[in-house]
Amino acid sequence: MLVFGHKNPDTDAITSAIVYAHLKAQLGEDVEAVRLGNPNPETQFVLDHFGVAAPRFVETVANEVKQVILVDHNERQQSAADIEQVEVAEVIDHHRIANFETANPLYYRAEPVGCTATILNKLYKEHGVDVPKEMAGLMLSAIVSDTLLLKSPTCTEQDVTAARELAAKAGVHLEEYGLQMLKAGADLSQKTIAELISLDAKEFQMGSYKVEIAQVNAVDVNDVLSRKAELEAALENVIAEKGLDLFFFVVTDILNNDSVGIALGKAANAVEQAYGVTLVDHQALLKGVVSRKKQIVPVLTDVLSK
Amino acid sequence: MLVFGHKNPDTDAITSAIVYAHLKAQLGEDVEAVRLGNPNPETQFVLDHFGVAAPRFVETVANEVKQVILVDHNERQQSAADIEQVEVAEVIDHHRIANFETANPLYYRAEPVGCTATILNKLYKEHGVDVPKEMAGLMLSAIVSDTLLLKSPTCTEQDVTAARELAAKAGVHLEEYGLQMLKAGADLSQKTIAELISLDAKEFQMGSYKVEIAQVNAVDVNDVLSRKAELEAALENVIAEKGLDLFFFVVTDILNNDSVGIALGKAANAVEQAYGVTLVDHQALLKGVVSRKKQIVPVLTDVLSK
Repeated sequence: MLVFGHKNPDTDAITSAIVYAHLKAQLGEDVEAVRLGNPNPETQFVLDHFGVAAPRFVETVANEVKQVILVDHNERQQSAADIEQVEVAEVIDHHRIANFETANPLYYRAEPVGCTATILNKLYKEHGVDVPKEMAGLMLSAIVSDTLLLKSPTCTEQDVTAARELAAKAGVHLEEYGLQMLKAGADLSQKTIAELISLDAKEFQMGSYKVEIAQVNAVDVNDVLSRKAELEAALENVIAEKGLDLFFFVVTDILNNDSVGIALGKAANAVEQAYGVTLVDHQALLKGVVSRKKQIVPVLTDVLSK
Repeated sequence: MLVFGHKNPDTDAITSAIVYAHLKAQLGEDVEAVRLGNPNPETQFVLDHFGVAAPRFVETVANEVKQVILVDHNERQQSAADIEQVEVAEVIDHHRIANFETANPLYYRAEPVGCTATILNKLYKEHGVDVPKEMAGLMLSAIVSDTLLLKSPTCTEQDVTAARELAAKAGVHLEEYGLQMLKAGADLSQKTIAELISLDAKEFQMGSYKVEIAQVNAVDVNDVLSRKAELEAALENVIAEKGLDLFFFVVTDILNNDSVGIALGKAANAVEQAYGVTLVDHQALLKGVVSRKKQIVPVLTDVLSK
């Protein structure tokens, strides 16, 4: 049996697979963690810090197994290329359910919390299994990553409680370690412009408008804004190629928990309406905005659907 | 907020709604149990035995609430007529997942066990809430009903453990009470032929064949077989009306855990192949067969898909 998180894996996707495979092993089940993509720099920092090896990379799964376990996702387009050819025996997730269907009953555990690791931490307790130091470290890191150190509006009380408990078990200082980890993932100085605008970009249909929103985390937003001319040229190219009405590029400051947004395209003024700001040179400060899912997609959808 | 089980409710569907509303109330949440259909005689016996009122009947829900909780089902065609107009906040279930999609993250708890009540019993423990006598009685009854007194192949170890524990809390003798309850639902003497063949009938496409399978529980299969001529005439009518290739009518003996099957239609010999039996006057004894889901649908599908 294989367990894996979504394609384009983030820290929660990679570590949840490792952690759930560990829990299963303690319960006497033989499950191997694998990954559908490369660890990003933040995830690599986490694995190095706790001395855990990255799972094996796979593209397809039906050539190896009949049954799989999904963590941190359920939608088939985010999963293994041949996911329809295997049986999903379990899902542990914190997202909406969509594009998902099974022929048989399964174990499905979803909770509306900030991170899959928060649910996994509960499962250890439900099964009466101790959480070893390095697994605590991986779960803590996933929570820090998904909640931007407990600052994102997706963060629940359960995530905060789990993070404090896991930091103690992992033997690290929550705030210090968390910031160090986020910084490791927010070093944008080595990224090309093409990487910056595509690393975490998602496309949305909002009313009759076609919108793309990309987000990057930064310790210093000037690392990105200093390359603004080059950046805008690249965004304009994507807009022309894909026929977008709006490309909203968001640089999130992980120290102050604000974002700077750059809006291009003929629907750019939707951003002004959505946040009550004025774009100066296509750019505006978005105070307190850190979550695309909760603070960007819904407000822009609202403005553009009117 | 409303909580309800599937249409054509069985004992698990009705009692799980009542029980989960009780647990929610102990957790300080205001959730009302409702039902999408009338309690069958077995369920009515259970409610009377433990002195619990049937939930209120509703056909639609969007006129009352914005959010709902589903128990013992998830597929939209089994749910309230206007289920697509409300948000599903939670699901507690033990079936496959299909025809189900949400816009937002939710609490989804499915486990591959024999009965929803087995999962609810766990939830009481996870929340540290005591199970009162009458709620224990309702959960026990749901397990007895879904597993045919722990005899069905859908029954897991977890169901058995939960049933024993709940019988003690409810202050009833598991086997005696269970049989009494099943008998209350298996009194077929008052049923019309039309009721017998439609009460629990489901249609399936198997390969290129259109098959309907109806199942009734009986204490004495002769209560049904004594009306065989009338029964077969009614089945032939349905076959002609719906253009069926096979109508398989199954009377399950709840005392001996065997079934008698009556097979009509041009694909009737599929039953002979499936079970290695010979139909005599369209009828055969199926030793040890009690579960349509596990022991009838898959084997017939297998034969008819070749």
